[in-house]
Amino acid sequence: MWAFRTARIGSLLAATSVILRRCLRLGVAMAKSKFEYVRNFEVQDTCLPHCWVVVRLDGRNFHRFAEEHNFAKPNDSRALHLMTKCAQTVMEELEDIVIAYGQSDEYSFVFRKKSNWFKRRASKFMTLVASQFASSYVFYWRDYFEDQPLRYPPGFDGRVVLYPSNQTLKDYLSWRQADCHINNLYNTVFWALIQQSGLTPVQAQQRLKGTLTADKNEILFSEFHINYNNEPHMYRKGTVLVWQKVEEVRTQEVRLPAEMEGEKKAVARTRTRVVALNCDLIGDAFWKEHPEILAEEN
Amino acid sequence: MWAFRTARIGSLLAATSVILRRCLRLGVAMAKSKFEYVRNFEVQDTCLPHCWVVVRLDGRNFHRFAEEHNFAKPNDSRALHLMTKCAQTVMEELEDIVIAYGQSDEYSFVFRKKSNWFKRRASKFMTLVASQFASSYVFYWRDYFEDQPLRYPPGFDGRVVLYPSNQTLKDYLSWRQADCHINNLYNTVFWALIQQSGLTPVQAQQRLKGTLTADKNEILFSEFHINYNNEPHMYRKGTVLVWQKVEEVRTQEVRLPAEMEGEKKAVARTRTRVVALNCDLIGDAFWKEHPEILAEEN
Amino acid sequence: MWAFRTARIGSLLAATSVILRRCLRLGVAMAKSKFEYVRNFEVQDTCLPHCWVVVRLDGRNFHRFAEEHNFAKPNDSRALHLMTKCAQTVMEELEDIVIAYGQSDEYSFVFRKKSNWFKRRASKFMTLVASQFASSYVFYWRDYFEDQPLRYPPGFDGRVVLYPSNQTLKDYLSWRQADCHINNLYNTVFWALIQQSGLTPVQAQQRLKGTLTADKNEILFSEFHINYNNEPHMYRKGTVLVWQKVEEVRTQEVRLPAEMEGEKKAVARTRTRVVALNCDLIGDAFWKEHPEILAEEN
Amino acid sequence: MWAFRTARIGSLLAATSVILRRCLRLGVAMAKSKFEYVRNFEVQDTCLPHCWVVVRLDGRNFHRFAEEHNFAKPNDSRALHLMTKCAQTVMEELEDIVIAYGQSDEYSFVFRKKSNWFKRRASKFMTLVASQFASSYVFYWRDYFEDQPLRYPPGFDGRVVLYPSNQTLKDYLSWRQADCHINNLYNTVFWALIQQSGLTPVQAQQRLKGTLTADKNEILFSEFHINYNNEPHMYRKGTVLVWQKVEEVRTQEVRLPAEMEGEKKAVARTRTRVVALNCDLIGDAFWKEHPEILAEEN
Repeated sequence: MWAFRTARIGSLLAATSVILRRCLRLGVAMAKSKFEYVRNFEVQDTCLPHCWVVVRLDGRNFHRFAEEHNFAKPNDSRALHLMTKCAQTVMEELEDIVIAYGQSDEYSFVFRKKSNWFKRRASKFMTLVASQFASSYVFYWRDYFEDQPLRYPPGFDGRVVLYPSNQTLKDYLSWRQADCHINNLYNTVFWALIQQSGLTPVQAQQRLKGTLTADKNEILFSEFHINYNNEPHMYRKGTVLVWQKVEEVRTQEVRLPAEMEGEKKAVARTRTRVVALNCDLIGDAFWKEHPEILAEEN
Repeated sequence: MWAFRTARIGSLLAATSVILRRCLRLGVAMAKSKFEYVRNFEVQDTCLPHCWVVVRLDGRNFHRFAEEHNFAKPNDSRALHLMTKCAQTVMEELEDIVIAYGQSDEYSFVFRKKSNWFKRRASKFMTLVASQFASSYVFYWRDYFEDQPLRYPPGFDGRVVLYPSNQTLKDYLSWRQADCHINNLYNTVFWALIQQSGLTPVQAQQRLKGTLTADKNEILFSEFHINYNNEPHMYRKGTVLVWQKVEEVRTQEVRLPAEMEGEKKAVARTRTRVVALNCDLIGDAFWKEHPEILAEEN
Repeated sequence: MWAFRTARIGSLLAATSVILRRCLRLGVAMAKSKFEYVRNFEVQDTCLPHCWVVVRLDGRNFHRFAEEHNFAKPNDSRALHLMTKCAQTVMEELEDIVIAYGQSDEYSFVFRKKSNWFKRRASKFMTLVASQFASSYVFYWRDYFEDQPLRYPPGFDGRVVLYPSNQTLKDYLSWRQADCHINNLYNTVFWALIQQSGLTPVQAQQRLKGTLTADKNEILFSEFHINYNNEPHMYRKGTVLVWQKVEEVRTQEVRLPAEMEGEKKAVARTRTRVVALNCDLIGDAFWKEHPEILAEEN
Repeated sequence: MWAFRTARIGSLLAATSVILRRCLRLGVAMAKSKFEYVRNFEVQDTCLPHCWVVVRLDGRNFHRFAEEHNFAKPNDSRALHLMTKCAQTVMEELEDIVIAYGQSDEYSFVFRKKSNWFKRRASKFMTLVASQFASSYVFYWRDYFEDQPLRYPPGFDGRVVLYPSNQTLKDYLSWRQADCHINNLYNTVFWALIQQSGLTPVQAQQRLKGTLTADKNEILFSEFHINYNNEPHMYRKGTVLVWQKVEEVRTQEVRLPAEMEGEKKAVARTRTRVVALNCDLIGDAFWKEHPEILAEEN
């Protein structure tokens, strides 16, 4: 009988505990709906339809980052190639990017005019580009800086800008490429003065103060026998990433009847892949060669 | 004489080339200013002053990511600790974050009301958080998943939400914690049914359809002898990151007169560091214990 | 002596009072600057450059307004002409409006693509259009409703919409004109059924439920001998306002030598004036006849 | 027989015409849906919840407007009273406005924190305020400027500003009232110098250049025997509009049994009405006397 009663008390206690827990849990569930009003504080940041959506990233404090990782000056080709590898990853992992352009520690990505990716929410565009780029930077670091460890994870800031017409988009990209040219010319002379003529940074700056583009060119030519036009295209023009159809021949394992099992076959396949170019974007030639980028159906 | 003439022709050619280059370069410089009008297409996305700025990140396609990296279910503590490590890095590297809260594959960061970091530009807040978090995820991966390589760099999407009062901010954090509870309870039962009772995912889903929070609790208790309240706090409550003053005793090398050179001294120093808690945020207790978080001066 | 002392006390009091006032006033002046931080809460709502800026107005509660002022149904031509007069005033008083389109109690105004009026601030565009239209409505009321007093001042709501290309702008205007057609056809049958066949509004609604545009047309033709195509253009097409060069002959007073003083002279002068049309906007014809509206230089 | 044939041809023609029209109409209907995509270009401009929504209006070119309508200087009480009448109309016609403040040619309207009027769309708030104010200005003009006709319909620009806390809202209103004080003091001296001392506007400006508030006060006192503190409150403080419960005794016609028909009864009724005050807003007194304006439930 005691056993019976204990059992009863036990089940009673259990029941009570269940009820108590039920209330507690129910409380949290109800609490959630009570708090859910806070969702209404989110804003709808849809990009205006039919506009080119550009996301531009810039390295955060990359001056210091370059110092700490001993980047070559004025250009570190490993660092530039790593940037481009990250940009390629962004284009492949995200959707609707038709062209990208990069130079120094910045990269711009252009989503097609009529993209409806994530309902064109600006915050999605820029944070997914920024985070994919940043995680790729660390992931692929060792492929470009084999002997040199990454000391800390870098940051990138981003922004979204809309361009309503093909002309304004082309002018945007031209603006970035012109910026690349101007900075690279300056840096080329600046570092030549320091590295080859032994000037201090302040002296080099003084020397270049007020010089026009042509003067810098002249200094390079006469003092360092550098013809700026022969400098690598990647430094002078930056990098353009576009999609290109490539014929891919690869050995493919094919599922076949039992007697042929394991056979392999060379298969030619057309794929679209991201290709890096170091060409001029400012003139018309590029756009004539790649009409599909701005094509109406985008 | 020929030498002379050649030299003259050479210098003539050089001069011409200089002039040509001068024109070309000048052209690009002028082109840049011609293109610079495109800057006006950027929008000023300043956050309303005197509001709490919340940036929430979510892992992109983390369902697949968890599968590919064999995350334990329903909770992988390595993954959760890595998330928290990244969030800590974000708080230390960026400015003005007073509290962060994370659960599952999401993390929320709260910038102080009166922060003027990057002139309160929403795009800066969200891309710097997203990129710093993502690069840290790859950087610190091996500290938490030693034997398991990272297969690809993950992405995170982010958004900015403003909360104009302390109450709405607390309700936001409560909303996320209530969400943590509800999901974790569901997942705990769901995976117990699969892992211990041998149900298929579809069967487990069927079984849980329509159950209230209390029912799930009951299943756990009666079928699996799991008292949900005894489950780890980190799983049930998520993780809260706050700044805390810590007394740091460390051995410090001190510059001293020559005869004492090389001596070391134990120095106690008060520093503020990011501390992780797995406590309740919904009730008042937390806010009473940490009044400085919502303090007026913020 | 008393006089002296009184004077002194008086001047003392005056001086004290001056000082007191000085402090008080200075206090308010300083207070102003203390409060001025609130200006930073204003947002910059610049319209994306190079986009057509459309402001659309709608009468507030115009159903009730029409009832209270005994508007003829389905169309009151006085009311429509008054709307157009107001829209003309808006075009003449504000700047950079290249075309306007109105029907029923709504009017759309299109500012030229490259307008920099008020730095393209959206709030300026919409409030200046709304207020100028509304004040004009009351101001010109009596010119159109001579015998009928205006009972209360009406309200109009407005919004700004951007269109990034000529095609999207034309589609916007086509959308409004198609809307005009559909509503007007419906209303024409609806009120014929009530006014001529004696149906109640509910019966008329029932009768029209599910009918296609063609069925309504048929009812009009067979039951009321109304060929919808012969209905006034203003009702079927709405009103388009454009700028047109007009040769204006007017008598002008001219400043002349003394002996001819007071003489007048007929002068022909070319002016651009707002002209109202009730034509089709959906087809190409209109845009071919008025190429200047969408012209590149806009 | 001819009759028969004619009829047949007639009906044939009619049928054809019906079909043609059917196609045409159907075309337009389908066209509408084809064009409807342009709706997606509208932006959602929801005001952040739980913030005070302030709409401020300013008269457009009111300097010229005042000249053309011979406004008294420095203050025209008719014009100020008309502004207040319009603001009262706005408060009564629109919803959720808890307080308004006006001075010179501007008026600010404060919607309650939790208003959900028109889903908190900023464009609705500002255009409805602007248009209602503007139409009222013309409508009520003759009540304040009996002998003087309105020469043209005026415009008003408007903007929306959000304030997230009671303190920032009070500081906004204080800012406007401090502005009223500073401008009015300046104008009072400026016009006294012109109207009473015969200075030209340029001379008056020169005289006041660099003077502090206290100096202006002193000029008024010593040169014109004006104690600025005795100037009308409406000029110095502007006008505050609030809702106030008023006991209204009015004669009401009551429906009663036949023998008593036509009798009237004095009925006392409590109503909330807009009341105009010319009091200080900067100190605490006002807010203590009117705690309901900022009360939590708003």
